[in-house]
Amino acid sequence: MSYTSQQWRLQSRPHGAPKPENFLWDEQSVREPRDGEVLLRTRYLSLDPYMRGRMSDAESYAKPVEVGDVMVGATVSEVLESRSPDFEPGQTVLGYGGWQTFSTERASTLRALDPDEAPVTTALGVLGMPGFTAYAGLLAIGNPQPGETVAVAAATGPVGSAVGQIAKLKGCRTVGIAGGPEKVAYLEELGFDAALDHRSGDLVEQLRSAAPGGIDVYFENVGGAVFEAILPRLNTFARVPVCGLAASYNATELPEGPDRAPALMGLVLRKSLTLRGFIQNEFVPTMFEDFLRDMGAWVREGKIQYREDITAGLDRAPEVFTSMLDGGNFGKTIIEVSG
Amino acid sequence: MSYTSQQWRLQSRPHGAPKPENFLWDEQSVREPRDGEVLLRTRYLSLDPYMRGRMSDAESYAKPVEVGDVMVGATVSEVLESRSPDFEPGQTVLGYGGWQTFSTERASTLRALDPDEAPVTTALGVLGMPGFTAYAGLLAIGNPQPGETVAVAAATGPVGSAVGQIAKLKGCRTVGIAGGPEKVAYLEELGFDAALDHRSGDLVEQLRSAAPGGIDVYFENVGGAVFEAILPRLNTFARVPVCGLAASYNATELPEGPDRAPALMGLVLRKSLTLRGFIQNEFVPTMFEDFLRDMGAWVREGKIQYREDITAGLDRAPEVFTSMLDGGNFGKTIIEVSG
Repeated sequence: MSYTSQQWRLQSRPHGAPKPENFLWDEQSVREPRDGEVLLRTRYLSLDPYMRGRMSDAESYAKPVEVGDVMVGATVSEVLESRSPDFEPGQTVLGYGGWQTFSTERASTLRALDPDEAPVTTALGVLGMPGFTAYAGLLAIGNPQPGETVAVAAATGPVGSAVGQIAKLKGCRTVGIAGGPEKVAYLEELGFDAALDHRSGDLVEQLRSAAPGGIDVYFENVGGAVFEAILPRLNTFARVPVCGLAASYNATELPEGPDRAPALMGLVLRKSLTLRGFIQNEFVPTMFEDFLRDMGAWVREGKIQYREDITAGLDRAPEVFTSMLDGGNFGKTIIEVSG
Repeated sequence: MSYTSQQWRLQSRPHGAPKPENFLWDEQSVREPRDGEVLLRTRYLSLDPYMRGRMSDAESYAKPVEVGDVMVGATVSEVLESRSPDFEPGQTVLGYGGWQTFSTERASTLRALDPDEAPVTTALGVLGMPGFTAYAGLLAIGNPQPGETVAVAAATGPVGSAVGQIAKLKGCRTVGIAGGPEKVAYLEELGFDAALDHRSGDLVEQLRSAAPGGIDVYFENVGGAVFEAILPRLNTFARVPVCGLAASYNATELPEGPDRAPALMGLVLRKSLTLRGFIQNEFVPTMFEDFLRDMGAWVREGKIQYREDITAGLDRAPEVFTSMLDGGNFGKTIIEVSG
């Protein structure tokens, strides 16, 4: 049978925040699967901050999306046709189909999902890449010890909310930072010991009250003004897993001076700080099985809560993506492509 | 018997580079030792970059020298009187007597030196704090692997020269950076695979030729322009032990913009870098015995060479110290206080 895939392609590289004209809506007939391949119908598309990086051609850890190519992204899909012994029609799988309604993928890149074990959308969030990013970065780099204080921003997002809840399970005091009263209220629901609103007044002062003993682990996923406010509160030997810098993804030039880099290095020296950048891939071989076991159990037992922000319709992907980069999402951002 | 100690005291806190008027020459009678104390005559005084930090009252890992107090510093001394069963007159000891000709110290803070094992001045350099800083920072944080490239600046200094030679013993390619042709020639004598002069032209270009495969470990002890030149050459997963930032110790304000801190954090993220500040004290409990064993053997066997820059006369300490901060030393800076 033949299918037509509706797609979002990269039309041009954004200068600053992505705009509608950076994306091109297209339709293409779907290539039949060859041996070892599977034809999929996209059910859910994950939207993640890293995609902003792929839209640019600056040197990075992954090669950029080429202008004219379909935008990349993790997907939960239904198997329509299979030329692999590992999958059969009707199965639900996690893949990397991108911003489109159908895709043809190598079976070896797919992971079967069991809808009875957890809602399949969780494979894009709390039980997927964002949850694993939180788990691996916090445990392998942050190395949180009972009684220590762990702080995280974008704390209602899929990474931040997992960081805070895992840290709490490890016996830490947790400080969550988010934008606006609704998100702050949710942080309290999640059990953060302190929930701060970076939009309401002096964050440095708020942090002083929220972390009177200083901060031992700051899980960095935003950068910018929040990082500046955190720095003076970091304790000697504090660890800073650096997993994202959302505040500067749309920056078009270096911020105005003075140059704070030497002061940052001075603080690293005086406080014996560890700053460690990472991409979750690094830890997949050593930690992914532990993650699925631990996090799966914590989610089933209600010890880890999660929130998904699902919008129906692939046509809305660009606007939802742009809004997410600006903090407009509330929970893991997902596009429902077909039910 | 009573002694008079000649001393350099901190007269005022420097603004920028230390000047003669920041130091006060004084004489005081030496306090008699009480039980558990020892009276020492200073033979050699170590001058080290960290002392610049102690002259300021900015928050740091150690409390500052108070205005009016004797300048601190490690010393090799002769025991004149002992009220401790652990030491007897005539012994040579490593202590922390400061910038003065005599001192009274607690026996528990001293370490006996055996002049037959190594020249006693080595306890201030290659077999002392600077050598241990190199050993611990390079091995515990840098974690150099055979075939990797290790770069270090101030490479003829007591820390840098040890870093390069230990890295070479560990099977690494070594890149040393120093100022001026005489120092660069010495780096070649020491066996560095590449010896660069940061005063001669484009360091970025020099580094490209010297480390064609990039840099895996950069042992940071200077900061400033050298660090800027190193950054683009760092490989994914590179480690940066941060042990000093000599280039900015005399800075009186933040450098002019643009603000490079966000770009630095961006690089940490994209390259999965580790920046880790440290003070050698942290590693004393776990690594100091190994250091004395390994480094002692390497020095005895001629596998690690060292160079000392000894000036006679305590009266010259301030000028020698100021010159050292400016790169005027060639090897470990030591004042011979009494022969």
